[in-house]
Amino acid sequence: MQETANRLVDALLASYTQVGGINHLDGKNLPSQRVIAALTSDLLRLLFPGFFDEHVLPSSAIRETTTQRVESVVPRLEGELYKSLEYAPPASTRRAELPALARELTMHFVEALPAVRELLQTDVQAAYGGDPAALSQDEVIVAYPFVEAIAVQRMAHQLYLRKVALIPRIMTEWAHRRTGLDLHPGAEIGSHFFVDHCTGTVVGETTQIGSHVRLYQGVGLVARSLSGGQALRGQKRHPTIHDRVTIYAGATIMGGDTVVGAGSTVGANVFLTHSVPANSLVLAEEVRVKVLSKTERAGAFDYQI
Amino acid sequence: MQETANRLVDALLASYTQVGGINHLDGKNLPSQRVIAALTSDLLRLLFPGFFDEHVLPSSAIRETTTQRVESVVPRLEGELYKSLEYAPPASTRRAELPALARELTMHFVEALPAVRELLQTDVQAAYGGDPAALSQDEVIVAYPFVEAIAVQRMAHQLYLRKVALIPRIMTEWAHRRTGLDLHPGAEIGSHFFVDHCTGTVVGETTQIGSHVRLYQGVGLVARSLSGGQALRGQKRHPTIHDRVTIYAGATIMGGDTVVGAGSTVGANVFLTHSVPANSLVLAEEVRVKVLSKTERAGAFDYQI
Amino acid sequence: MQETANRLVDALLASYTQVGGINHLDGKNLPSQRVIAALTSDLLRLLFPGFFDEHVLPSSAIRETTTQRVESVVPRLEGELYKSLEYAPPASTRRAELPALARELTMHFVEALPAVRELLQTDVQAAYGGDPAALSQDEVIVAYPFVEAIAVQRMAHQLYLRKVALIPRIMTEWAHRRTGLDLHPGAEIGSHFFVDHCTGTVVGETTQIGSHVRLYQGVGLVARSLSGGQALRGQKRHPTIHDRVTIYAGATIMGGDTVVGAGSTVGANVFLTHSVPANSLVLAEEVRVKVLSKTERAGAFDYQI
Repeated sequence: MQETANRLVDALLASYTQVGGINHLDGKNLPSQRVIAALTSDLLRLLFPGFFDEHVLPSSAIRETTTQRVESVVPRLEGELYKSLEYAPPASTRRAELPALARELTMHFVEALPAVRELLQTDVQAAYGGDPAALSQDEVIVAYPFVEAIAVQRMAHQLYLRKVALIPRIMTEWAHRRTGLDLHPGAEIGSHFFVDHCTGTVVGETTQIGSHVRLYQGVGLVARSLSGGQALRGQKRHPTIHDRVTIYAGATIMGGDTVVGAGSTVGANVFLTHSVPANSLVLAEEVRVKVLSKTERAGAFDYQI
Repeated sequence: MQETANRLVDALLASYTQVGGINHLDGKNLPSQRVIAALTSDLLRLLFPGFFDEHVLPSSAIRETTTQRVESVVPRLEGELYKSLEYAPPASTRRAELPALARELTMHFVEALPAVRELLQTDVQAAYGGDPAALSQDEVIVAYPFVEAIAVQRMAHQLYLRKVALIPRIMTEWAHRRTGLDLHPGAEIGSHFFVDHCTGTVVGETTQIGSHVRLYQGVGLVARSLSGGQALRGQKRHPTIHDRVTIYAGATIMGGDTVVGAGSTVGANVFLTHSVPANSLVLAEEVRVKVLSKTERAGAFDYQI
Repeated sequence: MQETANRLVDALLASYTQVGGINHLDGKNLPSQRVIAALTSDLLRLLFPGFFDEHVLPSSAIRETTTQRVESVVPRLEGELYKSLEYAPPASTRRAELPALARELTMHFVEALPAVRELLQTDVQAAYGGDPAALSQDEVIVAYPFVEAIAVQRMAHQLYLRKVALIPRIMTEWAHRRTGLDLHPGAEIGSHFFVDHCTGTVVGETTQIGSHVRLYQGVGLVARSLSGGQALRGQKRHPTIHDRVTIYAGATIMGGDTVVGAGSTVGANVFLTHSVPANSLVLAEEVRVKVLSKTERAGAFDYQI
């Protein structure tokens, strides 16, 4: 056994050396998925105090609890931000300046949380107001995956705006895993946003979304897959959605020049690659319905679809 | 540092007070996501003994193990049901009656589990019988996300029928997170149900589904997004699917008046907003296929889609 | 209480005995979901050393760490493989031979890991090269759900090729849960594969995929739902995708005879059930766009979709 194990270890070590590109040893110290997951979870509790706790949080304890949470979050966030800065230092910043920069980014981030909470309240209102299945805003916060996903995106967007590497995307991918909703930290999303059911919806990096926009599951606001690849970084590649637009399940809207005008409705499973004016109703062609006898049906089932 | 932390805490406390609506302090004690998650996981073990344990469960131990599990589940469920009743007390029920009502709901729920198991067995049979990739009913239970999702829905539906607030939805959203399958606790689902692959499929609150119905991933049985919003609560807003219907991936069927007749097949990515009779075959228009030369292709890629 | 609890336990025990089919007691010992989840997680650390750890892994420690990980993984994998062999013993193998066979399968599996790493490196390159939102190959590995899903499929495929029961599917369903990407362990997938956004994409058991293929979220490479059911096991039921094909979000491609020729592009939400030649551009019909006045719009919204 020992001999076999040694042989297996040698083969793996040789692979680590030769293949390269997919391991990370003695390189720059990447931010940790695990630390960021725990941190993001704690930040959600700062945003929605009392909602994700096992026991109710009395008003008399809220200052103490909030103080403890802030004191717990700040050094951990600072540590991860430092790793991110070390991994991808801003142009014209000396290494000695990075600790102070990590501290400054952390403070700005926590200071932005009240404004993030104000935006999130509009999202909760939009979710509650438009969904007859929701019994109360409390139910929306405690049970809807959407609230978690948009809260994480709005926090990660703050870091994205300050050009923090890796962390914003690790945060939103954590929420993506948990909710099925893939909101890139770069997307600019207006107030009163709601994604019903969440699963499979994708909002790409350079998407711009107005206020009072409602999406359903499986909607893609995506980029063309161009041969340009990495050369396209930084360009506007994803669509622009104006105010009061509703996009039904499975619709894909593609391209940086594509604009959906205010007040429009896009039907389910539409594939839209050009702009439409305000108040448009965009639908796929009518479906074909054929009523079959039993004998026909077996054939249709096997050969037509 | 201490001064800065104090300032951040003050800003957050001010936000909790001013923004309102998204925090929960000294209010009614909401049922806990965490407790309900652990509880639901234990209930799955009561439904499928021996399947979700690390070690095999011998017959000689089954009475003792089952007794322990029932004794562990009952008080926790009762506690959460009490919180739910306190949060949204039934009309004409006095507060002093709530503990007895929580106890009664708990007992009825556990008593219903054998009937739930009978229904689930038909689902496992449907999954196994229709999927050539399944090696055995054992594999279906141990590996298929569908079994977990439908088991949780069928349990949550029992609580929904007794008008329990919040808990049914927290249970199904827990399963939604884990499986990608969003089955509302209100949906009425017949026997021999199967959803292959699960991810992205949504079955809304007032959906009615017959027996032997098979869905694929990304199917939506959904409501129109109407301006009515909360005013529509309680109305039938989601479609009715009769017996022996198959609905392929990504099809969206919308509206409370929409009925899909027995024995019908709905093709992938169809958007259906009106009723179809029994034995219908519903397909989207034919796709266009264009074979391009290399030069044409680059253009098509960049500009046509 | 005690009496009630006893009654509930008796009812459940009666259900376990009578309903059958969905419980597992004194039967063959199934591989454990939990053990396999922990094992798969550890195998990912062997494939990508230093990426999923909290602290950076220095070169000086890599031999020791790798040795520890191999020594931890080997006996656990062997144990689960033994359970799988006991559950579904290969034809013409005596029970006494199973421990040696479990050992042999374990060794072959670990020996294959360096080759798996080489393939995975091409996948990471494909993900990075084609996605302008990716900052580095490091970000792809640390944040993209795709890397986890394809790594698990490529490992599970090794076990599938050796006809190991249950374990390969439990491994890929673990990744499916975490990433939303459902890659069956049986699928043959070429190099430089990438699935952007992952959620809802399904690749079926007998799918064959060439090299440099790129899929988006919600794509289905699936089988017809035939009345044959279990009788079809082992037949080619899922499509064949040749080299350099791009398939956009939500497209469903169905059937074992369906071949998508090299260099083709399939548009979003297409439902394709027949073969297309090389360099095809496959699109759904054009969408209908109607610009509505306010009054019309209310009607359209309520009645037309």
